[in-house]
Amino acid sequence: MNDIGIVSMSAVGSWKQVSARLEKTVSGYSEADLQREVAPGRNRIYYLVGHLAAVHDRMLPLLLIGERRYSELDEAFLTKADRVVADSISGEELREALRVANLEVTAGLEGWSAEEFLKRHSAVSEEDFAVDPLRNRLSVLLSRTNHASFHLGQMLLVK
Amino acid sequence: MNDIGIVSMSAVGSWKQVSARLEKTVSGYSEADLQREVAPGRNRIYYLVGHLAAVHDRMLPLLLIGERRYSELDEAFLTKADRVVADSISGEELREALRVANLEVTAGLEGWSAEEFLKRHSAVSEEDFAVDPLRNRLSVLLSRTNHASFHLGQMLLVK
Repeated sequence: MNDIGIVSMSAVGSWKQVSARLEKTVSGYSEADLQREVAPGRNRIYYLVGHLAAVHDRMLPLLLIGERRYSELDEAFLTKADRVVADSISGEELREALRVANLEVTAGLEGWSAEEFLKRHSAVSEEDFAVDPLRNRLSVLLSRTNHASFHLGQMLLVK
Repeated sequence: MNDIGIVSMSAVGSWKQVSARLEKTVSGYSEADLQREVAPGRNRIYYLVGHLAAVHDRMLPLLLIGERRYSELDEAFLTKADRVVADSISGEELREALRVANLEVTAGLEGWSAEEFLKRHSAVSEEDFAVDPLRNRLSVLLSRTNHASFHLGQMLLVK
């Protein structure tokens, strides 16, 4: 394995570790638990699961892995804050969306050659990428892994 | 810049982004805020600041950057849970320890050649590292960045 191979495996390992912990945590909540707020007046776990499902689903086109599956989540879980849109989807469905999105992102990453991590993502133009090669797929992966850790820390406040 | 250079800059960029957000958040809390729990019955922000200062200070020898400065934090903020050890240090001192630890880790990373990120860290033996080259300094950096994001998400529940 060359150096870039080791690096990309480190980053994918970090993503997989956080994703696995996230899914394990989420699978431990009942529908009633999902309705609990992570702290008084803050987001419900229900919202955070939908939020992470939407964000991870959006990684598929962003990383040029494939098409989105759950764009209907954006309005309630990404554009708007918790409780602005009436709940129209079960916690179980959100959990499944998160599981599928994580699975597809991971499968996509694992199919990449090491060099693909350094290619541009779909939200940066070729011109801008030529100026700033740090706007690559690896940076997206690191950023989303941190984002998932951020909300995982909040969810784990509810037992 | 070669490929490994771009990769290591992406990882350092992620660390710096999380560290900067962490310090900005922590600097916004008064001593009274620091005594607040992130959620009912959970860790105080005071404890989390000390915890992150200790963990980041430990990165210095772990990444072979240098000696620790704040090993006296371990007992109250790493080994033991919140409130087990009586508070003997001010929030301002914890904030300063976190700031210094982050600064020294970042300065160390920025002084590295790209290849140094793939060398072994000090907690893995040469024999074990030969078997598993993913136990490198980059993996430590990614793991600690996620850990900081995890607790940052909790702290931000208190405004």
